[in-house]
Amino acid sequence: MLTLSVALGDRSYPIHIGSGLLKRPELIQDYIGGKTTAIISNETIAPLYLEELHKITVLYKNTDIILPDGEKYKTLETEQQIFTQMLSARCDRKSTLLALGGGVVGDMTGFAAACYQRGIDFIQVPTTLLAMVDSSVGGKTGVNHPLGKNMIGAFHQPQCVLIDIDTLDTLDDKQLSAGLAEVIKYGFIRDPEFLGWLDENMKKLLQRDKKALTYAIYRSCQHKAEIVAADERETGQRALLNLGHTFGHAIETGMGYGEWLHGEAVAVGMVMAAKLSQKMGWIGANDVERIKNLLIKANLPITPPEEISAERFAQLMSIDKKVQDGVLSLVLMTDYGKSIVTSAFDKDALETVLGGFK
Amino acid sequence: MLTLSVALGDRSYPIHIGSGLLKRPELIQDYIGGKTTAIISNETIAPLYLEELHKITVLYKNTDIILPDGEKYKTLETEQQIFTQMLSARCDRKSTLLALGGGVVGDMTGFAAACYQRGIDFIQVPTTLLAMVDSSVGGKTGVNHPLGKNMIGAFHQPQCVLIDIDTLDTLDDKQLSAGLAEVIKYGFIRDPEFLGWLDENMKKLLQRDKKALTYAIYRSCQHKAEIVAADERETGQRALLNLGHTFGHAIETGMGYGEWLHGEAVAVGMVMAAKLSQKMGWIGANDVERIKNLLIKANLPITPPEEISAERFAQLMSIDKKVQDGVLSLVLMTDYGKSIVTSAFDKDALETVLGGFK
Repeated sequence: MLTLSVALGDRSYPIHIGSGLLKRPELIQDYIGGKTTAIISNETIAPLYLEELHKITVLYKNTDIILPDGEKYKTLETEQQIFTQMLSARCDRKSTLLALGGGVVGDMTGFAAACYQRGIDFIQVPTTLLAMVDSSVGGKTGVNHPLGKNMIGAFHQPQCVLIDIDTLDTLDDKQLSAGLAEVIKYGFIRDPEFLGWLDENMKKLLQRDKKALTYAIYRSCQHKAEIVAADERETGQRALLNLGHTFGHAIETGMGYGEWLHGEAVAVGMVMAAKLSQKMGWIGANDVERIKNLLIKANLPITPPEEISAERFAQLMSIDKKVQDGVLSLVLMTDYGKSIVTSAFDKDALETVLGGFK
Repeated sequence: MLTLSVALGDRSYPIHIGSGLLKRPELIQDYIGGKTTAIISNETIAPLYLEELHKITVLYKNTDIILPDGEKYKTLETEQQIFTQMLSARCDRKSTLLALGGGVVGDMTGFAAACYQRGIDFIQVPTTLLAMVDSSVGGKTGVNHPLGKNMIGAFHQPQCVLIDIDTLDTLDDKQLSAGLAEVIKYGFIRDPEFLGWLDENMKKLLQRDKKALTYAIYRSCQHKAEIVAADERETGQRALLNLGHTFGHAIETGMGYGEWLHGEAVAVGMVMAAKLSQKMGWIGANDVERIKNLLIKANLPITPPEEISAERFAQLMSIDKKVQDGVLSLVLMTDYGKSIVTSAFDKDALETVLGGFK
């Protein structure tokens, strides 16, 4: 087992990564303070791993809250249903929530924990690669609004993140690739060496080689933990983690939540960011090719859906959280393996990129 | 103008109290950081004071969000409608919300600010006595759930609280009395001297004597600011502020939100807390009489609604936020003008009190 720490003073917490961790109750039990727990999961994951988690929660008065599966249920309405079940089960301020599932379950559980009686503890048990390397770490929680993704939420850090890589055995190929998009993202942001490793080991990762997966997850979490510790509330460098996300969110919102997987949308978004960076003269055509090739190797899409016009794209991007006082900032690339947050890009170049895929 | 400060480090903020303050734009403008604002108010208050606030927000791109009036609209569903309007108006992370109204508007605006894009600024402009002396100060924000009052929320401090006592001119008598319940509460918790002053000046307060009102508001806010600065997240003494509230919330939830005014329910709750304290031998029958008499002087009710049985009362109280690991804590009185938080009360005595009004 590998362990990392997210260093946030008295809100610091560990990330445990390894095989068979769900069979080690003490890893989670150390982080449960009260006498009641509620496991929040979804209809796909619950039949697979809920029983294992029950062996851990056997010491507590536990309630299961099983949500329908999918991004389109990541809404305030579903949160209200979670609260109803928590109140009916007499969850109180000392209760702990356990998020068993992917990014949607983790984001919704975290937000429920942030708001229930103005804040209770929660633990992340991610079961998708995407949740393991990104959404379960860092305390960003929330739900979507029909007008914008992740628009409603809170910063609320978990007590602990438990990554049992055995749960990836049941992940479908499409979801695995979507998770790889966020893994690759760390390389594009700040780790050219990791990009080399990913290029060499992509086949192993797709074949679910546990050693390769563990390394990729560990290195990703290391980046995430470092960035979050330095800038928890995203006043600076944490925004780098949104590489490809402003474009990607526009795809997700524009197509309807759940139509595109988040990781797929981010992959395309990173290509769009690369193209804009190229137009600005910051990276070369060969860099854009390498970026595209690595994503193709991971079985990820590299072109946006034809349904979204350039105008619609621009409109959707204008309500991104990266807009402040009407000015849009984007994460763009200055090298293969280096990105910056900037609003100093050419608007015409952006329009060309948005329209350039037809 | 009198000014108090809520001392919370880099989240400290001022409370301005006085007459004609809405005519002094600079008092609020100093606390607006970005270029966009949204005023959240309700159908009763907006026609009275929205125009004055527009003179303050004239420098910004402002949107008005007008809610229906009443506690029964303090729901996640209304929050969703607020978010829709904010997103449509392109509010971003630098936008500031202004809460113009009573406790419901303030709680909902604060919670919207806490959750919109994971947290933006807001300013409280309370227009009811209750909001001025209690809910606008201290950063407790949130909404009700059908199963429990204020169960969903966040701690999120405002940038500034602007109390223009002229707005009390339009408050109806019932609401004025409800606000006095929270004023009197500070006396019962920790200020016997203030109880004497209130006893002497109740008539002036009911006649809306501005000098008396200003003093009562100032002294109340002083108590609130001190307690919040010492215990922002209610891990200790802040719970004292809930005197009468566990009983009161049960009345509000049991009768249906909006049937009883919050302050009315709290008044009855304080009488019930007094009776339980008497049964425990901590205060005398004469103290209970003085407590009841002061509340009667303020035109407040002192007996719970007959519709709620003792059993239903107990059930409603069991999902109060003051329950931890199944144990209920209550704020009880140890003297006329002194209260404590304790779970060391006799359960049979509580049952007797709950059933003793039939």
